[in-house]
Amino acid sequence: MATKSEQTRLHLAEVALRMFREIGFEETTMRAIAAEAGVSVGNAYYYFASKDDLVQELYVQVQAEHAAKAGEALVGLKDLGSRLKATLHTGLDVMAPYHRFGADFVATAIRPTSPVNPFAGESTAAREASLGIFRAAVEGASPAAPRKLRADLPELLWLGYMGVVLFWVYDTSEGQRRTRKLVDGAVPLIVRGLALARIPGVNRVLDDVLSLSRSIRN
Amino acid sequence: MATKSEQTRLHLAEVALRMFREIGFEETTMRAIAAEAGVSVGNAYYYFASKDDLVQELYVQVQAEHAAKAGEALVGLKDLGSRLKATLHTGLDVMAPYHRFGADFVATAIRPTSPVNPFAGESTAAREASLGIFRAAVEGASPAAPRKLRADLPELLWLGYMGVVLFWVYDTSEGQRRTRKLVDGAVPLIVRGLALARIPGVNRVLDDVLSLSRSIRN
Repeated sequence: MATKSEQTRLHLAEVALRMFREIGFEETTMRAIAAEAGVSVGNAYYYFASKDDLVQELYVQVQAEHAAKAGEALVGLKDLGSRLKATLHTGLDVMAPYHRFGADFVATAIRPTSPVNPFAGESTAAREASLGIFRAAVEGASPAAPRKLRADLPELLWLGYMGVVLFWVYDTSEGQRRTRKLVDGAVPLIVRGLALARIPGVNRVLDDVLSLSRSIRN
Repeated sequence: MATKSEQTRLHLAEVALRMFREIGFEETTMRAIAAEAGVSVGNAYYYFASKDDLVQELYVQVQAEHAAKAGEALVGLKDLGSRLKATLHTGLDVMAPYHRFGADFVATAIRPTSPVNPFAGESTAAREASLGIFRAAVEGASPAAPRKLRADLPELLWLGYMGVVLFWVYDTSEGQRRTRKLVDGAVPLIVRGLALARIPGVNRVLDDVLSLSRSIRN
């Protein structure tokens, strides 16, 4: 059973995320969150030093939910294309209630000094969790992805997913259907693109792309 | 000759940009900018309604400087690879003094509601100017880029450049040499990748990538 302290923490996060969704991120102050949660302001700050920490909490929660939903959706799916689509669409499903708040999330997360920055040291655990979702999608695929790409593919797909998330933030179409269309259109192209890796000329360029991408990351 | 009003505007922008560089964006208030510029706070707000407007000013200035420097650098360069490298490196040169401020700039610019957002309506003129730099790089190349790609290539390269800028913001290596390395490594791969467009299998996938990218943009 959760301790009193854990309960207060969860309650605060829940209230904050609801207020972000309903009132907006900028408009929601720590003071208002504390009042709404029935907790003293000092106590609220004890659990979350800033709104950034609440954004981090949301990041971790959304990720956990994505991993669970993607895991369910992958059961019985064999080919990489279906697995990728399921992984991307469940990600969009989980983020959907937060669309209004997406821009604030990205603006907060993109600062190199933010604990939520997906490329920063502090978020290694959260990034690894997110990468794991794409690793599962690739590793369970049959037929398997080209051997040469198998090690790098999850990270490249995850980077692509960051691009999809950015596109989704800017997507003002109803229910963000343009992002859904992008996913449905892009996945078959990725799968066909991977098959091209077997053409010798393409293969040589790909070798150099992978080696550049590795040298840049380290 | 510039009117008194234009002079005040330019002076304010100059002072603000210097303070952003020297003190940092978060720490520089409109009040401090006005004081440093010897202008009343009310007067400062008359020229720039917020720090966001000053960021927009910086965006426009950096762009104009980039266009000028890239134009000079392109003189006498024939092949697409050299032209692209010159375009990207002059962009990095022009941004270099603002590296410290880069993260704040990106965090401001990435909000869909920001006038500085490179994808937003308000910044159409600035985006068009930036796109024009890449159009000039592609159109002057000899041998010419594959015909099929020529119309879309400037925009695709500009999107890639947005990625390079993001990489640069996170690049804490001395003088951002990792970004320079990325440019030097990626440009030859782009050029070789373009040559692959002539392989029939690649060509078919490329057709579908271009048609997806067009359908998504409109």
